[in-house]
Amino acid sequence: MDKEEKTAIPPEKLSKILDVAQKRFARFGLAKTTMSEIADDLGVSKASLYYYFPDKECIFKKVVVKEQSDFCQQMKKILASDKKITSTLKDYIENRTSYFKTLINLGHLNYDAFHAQKPLYASLGKEFYEKEKEIIKTLLQNAKKRNEIKKIDIDEYAGFFVHVLRTLRLYALGRKELWEQGSMDKELKQEYTFFTNIFLKSIENI
Amino acid sequence: MDKEEKTAIPPEKLSKILDVAQKRFARFGLAKTTMSEIADDLGVSKASLYYYFPDKECIFKKVVVKEQSDFCQQMKKILASDKKITSTLKDYIENRTSYFKTLINLGHLNYDAFHAQKPLYASLGKEFYEKEKEIIKTLLQNAKKRNEIKKIDIDEYAGFFVHVLRTLRLYALGRKELWEQGSMDKELKQEYTFFTNIFLKSIENI
Repeated sequence: MDKEEKTAIPPEKLSKILDVAQKRFARFGLAKTTMSEIADDLGVSKASLYYYFPDKECIFKKVVVKEQSDFCQQMKKILASDKKITSTLKDYIENRTSYFKTLINLGHLNYDAFHAQKPLYASLGKEFYEKEKEIIKTLLQNAKKRNEIKKIDIDEYAGFFVHVLRTLRLYALGRKELWEQGSMDKELKQEYTFFTNIFLKSIENI
Repeated sequence: MDKEEKTAIPPEKLSKILDVAQKRFARFGLAKTTMSEIADDLGVSKASLYYYFPDKECIFKKVVVKEQSDFCQQMKKILASDKKITSTLKDYIENRTSYFKTLINLGHLNYDAFHAQKPLYASLGKEFYEKEKEIIKTLLQNAKKRNEIKKIDIDEYAGFFVHVLRTLRLYALGRKELWEQGSMDKELKQEYTFFTNIFLKSIENI
């Protein structure tokens, strides 16, 4: 899991490999994807892929880290706005659901970790948790400066907020009927919204 | 899953079977328990067990329903108190964690459902959700009568409260390090408490 790429890859080549691998992992998951398949998708030999990467886990890790940074970049745009926390946080959860639809590997990390207990999933999941917590912290700190919220332990509240989003999502991903009805996103948005309202009411300065 | 006992069982006999089966299921789970083992634990022949029950799922169902009613009975005692909702709800979550330590089959239902996708787990889990929601509804209704909380959609809030407790618990049960450190209960109580505080602050009449 801590193995890294063996030889430095030219950025363009790396970007192409990650794009192709991202699609395959998103469709079939880490377990059901092989190095040969990624090589085939790229139209290169397996050997040439192994030249750069020791194993598929190493590629997977890079794909997820890329998805994390795409996610954070998009989310930081929301932070940059000058709107009140009530509307920023709602924008945040709205976008969170939509992004996970495109960043499938990232969106499934927790679910996969839960099922496979693979240390790689767990460590990537933890990393993402910390990044998301930082975003929410900044958001709460900005709101505090503008006196929109009460005096709270911002670190603790940010961590708990992200934790609940994660648990709600994990639970929903395990509900077969939501997949069958195609109502996963709708359900999750409702739950996120309900929670965000409770969360905001509990910290708002009134 | 909808098969019921074949022949009416004398209550004393049933109670003994369920006690014994409850222990075995708690220790080994439904999948790793056989009718022969339950019969052995009871010191009776397998045939005599099959005389009353078509399969182990039928016994498991009865065990879980019994655990549900034990749980609800204990929880209703808390409801009967005349204390304010802030302290009743805290009592509730305190007891919830402790009870799941003794009502192991009930406490693992969601986790098992998540892993095995067995309709029996899902239906028993849903049943328990509805029962727990009713308890929280009564609690909120009592608080409303005493004017302790704002005007809210009590049904929706009760449902969401129970839902979050369940998702937090499911997530925690999947975290290997909590098992290893023996810190599951401590972690869950902390998370329940944090959530309950947010929940209460968002509905309290001030």
